[in-house]
Amino acid sequence: MSGMSRRGTVPPFIVMDVVRAATDREAQGLPVWHMEVGQPSLGVPKGVTESLKGVLDSDALGYTVALGLPELRRRIAAHYQRTQGVEIDPQRVVVTTGSSTGFILAFAACFEVGARVGLAQPGYPAYPSILRSLGIEPVSIPVGPDSRYQPTVEVLERFGQKLDGLIVASPSNPTGTIMAPEELQRLTAYCDANGIRLISDEIYHGIAFGQQAATAARFTDQAVLINSFSKYFCMTGWRLGWLVVPEPMVRGVECLAQNLFISAPALSQHAGIHVFDHIDELEERVAAYGRSRAMLLEELPKAGFSRFAPPDGAFYLYADVADRTNDSLEFCRRMLAETGVAATPGVDFDPLGGSHFVRFSFARDEASLREAVEQLKGWS
Amino acid sequence: MSGMSRRGTVPPFIVMDVVRAATDREAQGLPVWHMEVGQPSLGVPKGVTESLKGVLDSDALGYTVALGLPELRRRIAAHYQRTQGVEIDPQRVVVTTGSSTGFILAFAACFEVGARVGLAQPGYPAYPSILRSLGIEPVSIPVGPDSRYQPTVEVLERFGQKLDGLIVASPSNPTGTIMAPEELQRLTAYCDANGIRLISDEIYHGIAFGQQAATAARFTDQAVLINSFSKYFCMTGWRLGWLVVPEPMVRGVECLAQNLFISAPALSQHAGIHVFDHIDELEERVAAYGRSRAMLLEELPKAGFSRFAPPDGAFYLYADVADRTNDSLEFCRRMLAETGVAATPGVDFDPLGGSHFVRFSFARDEASLREAVEQLKGWS
Repeated sequence: MSGMSRRGTVPPFIVMDVVRAATDREAQGLPVWHMEVGQPSLGVPKGVTESLKGVLDSDALGYTVALGLPELRRRIAAHYQRTQGVEIDPQRVVVTTGSSTGFILAFAACFEVGARVGLAQPGYPAYPSILRSLGIEPVSIPVGPDSRYQPTVEVLERFGQKLDGLIVASPSNPTGTIMAPEELQRLTAYCDANGIRLISDEIYHGIAFGQQAATAARFTDQAVLINSFSKYFCMTGWRLGWLVVPEPMVRGVECLAQNLFISAPALSQHAGIHVFDHIDELEERVAAYGRSRAMLLEELPKAGFSRFAPPDGAFYLYADVADRTNDSLEFCRRMLAETGVAATPGVDFDPLGGSHFVRFSFARDEASLREAVEQLKGWS
Repeated sequence: MSGMSRRGTVPPFIVMDVVRAATDREAQGLPVWHMEVGQPSLGVPKGVTESLKGVLDSDALGYTVALGLPELRRRIAAHYQRTQGVEIDPQRVVVTTGSSTGFILAFAACFEVGARVGLAQPGYPAYPSILRSLGIEPVSIPVGPDSRYQPTVEVLERFGQKLDGLIVASPSNPTGTIMAPEELQRLTAYCDANGIRLISDEIYHGIAFGQQAATAARFTDQAVLINSFSKYFCMTGWRLGWLVVPEPMVRGVECLAQNLFISAPALSQHAGIHVFDHIDELEERVAAYGRSRAMLLEELPKAGFSRFAPPDGAFYLYADVADRTNDSLEFCRRMLAETGVAATPGVDFDPLGGSHFVRFSFARDEASLREAVEQLKGWS
């Protein structure tokens, strides 16, 4: 009884080390350019917060029904129609407390204790931790530039291990690569044919610089889709997200959500309803990410960072720094100390290969990103 | 791959049946007196929502640190000093998204897959569901009027089974009974001596009609305390709660919380900070519950409900209706249909014994509760 369970013992996000050092620097009055943080620097559009003041005055903000406010579920379904041309029955939409509880719900609903779930490496470090804490075995599938960092059918066939589930993230964190629609279609067919439950992490949907990422719902009704209001909708701290689940699972997921979470935060659900009225403003922000991305593609090579796949979406750039270090954590620490630029060491996304990668986030305003690159130019 | 996992398949809250029927009644324009709902009808004090308008204007409301805003953790620690005379290091306070994620964090942190965790029956129905979904075995411990519905040391010794953990809730849901401080002290000593991790659910603390419930932290630093802003603080839909964890577990729980939940909702955390400035208003509400309780103790027997232990705390009254039915769900359905009074069937809290119990909530205003009892008086 001395402490943590084994299954509850998960690694910290290594970037928190960098975050702490950055906070210390700022406390000393030194400048920091934040390229480590995976969240938009602008909050939810002003029009939304103004609407919420009225909600604060008029609503007691009690629990909502477990699946979420019906109006919010309708608007989410309509969002698929508008952005993807896909009809989603609002009954299949499950409102969650950020994608975080979406993952917990989805994994617990789909997988037994001891199940094996594949995930791309590099990938979001919370996946294996959440899986492990639920008694599920995360199975890392190495991916690289040859498959554009995605677990394609070829990658899975080469990998060859039996899986009960597969997580795919397109756009990917940390690489920003998007799986082409025909690749995703082949993957959904492969998963359906092989009894592999596909968990499609679509939280960066809407942020793309060429073709938009396709939702897995275009190709199958067997996948569980995970989405969030945090990234495109700029609502990180509101903790609001959603699932789209296969129709036969709706009732089971409802019962599980009632028991595990009761409901998502009521005011955040109202914010989610209102934010759909501000799509133009959100699109301007995506355009700004696009300008920042173009600037970085142009300028980062001049600062000695030239080995990366141009990101298709999200707001990350995953740079191979093998020519400069084989210890990305130490590299990021030194970069922060000597230039003030904070970035995320690749080891957070890939304990092995990540030792010679760094993830730069360009979710901040272009001017400060430009300053950051200038700092890096003089440094080596 | 056809549907839900076994461990993710949990029973619905049976009361939702009653809630649906009540909603239908209201849609038909018929009156409903809500005594089924476990939430205060008044929302957070007005002063809090006014303060939040300023926060909405000035704060981007991004993620917070995983353990919660430092100011909120300090105020929670100070709350223990003021209400319980116990010094709690704010470092041990972990802010959670309601008690719901508190339970998930606590259970995953403390118990391996396959561990056995005891819980009183009758008790909160989400406990066994959350445990099962995490691969933990819930072990029901029958309790009754002889131990005032609490899993005392005597009950545990008589029960005799080996446990890895024990959940105790005082005040209890559904019975409202409070474990006397000396009983709780004996229980904590017993758990510590026998390697049983005590999970002390204290979410109804602050709502008591005689002696306040004691926190387990008065007697041990090995228990995990679970608390919430939902009940005493009237903030159900804000989804805010907290844990107090043993000092050696803080770092592990922090890593787990980062991975599982990132952070609790930012605006709700601000609400939590502000609500501590409105304790007088909250105390007036507790006084109102006390008046409603006194009225019900007087009037319910006149309506044929006379077999219950007067609740020490929370806002529930658990009535034995064995003289009227052996099917509490059917009884509640009929009561709603014939009187408009909605209550929760005991089977939600105890699949066996609950068939002849009904839980009445008195979280609503006294006037409407008085009307409800009048409806019941004419009914049998």
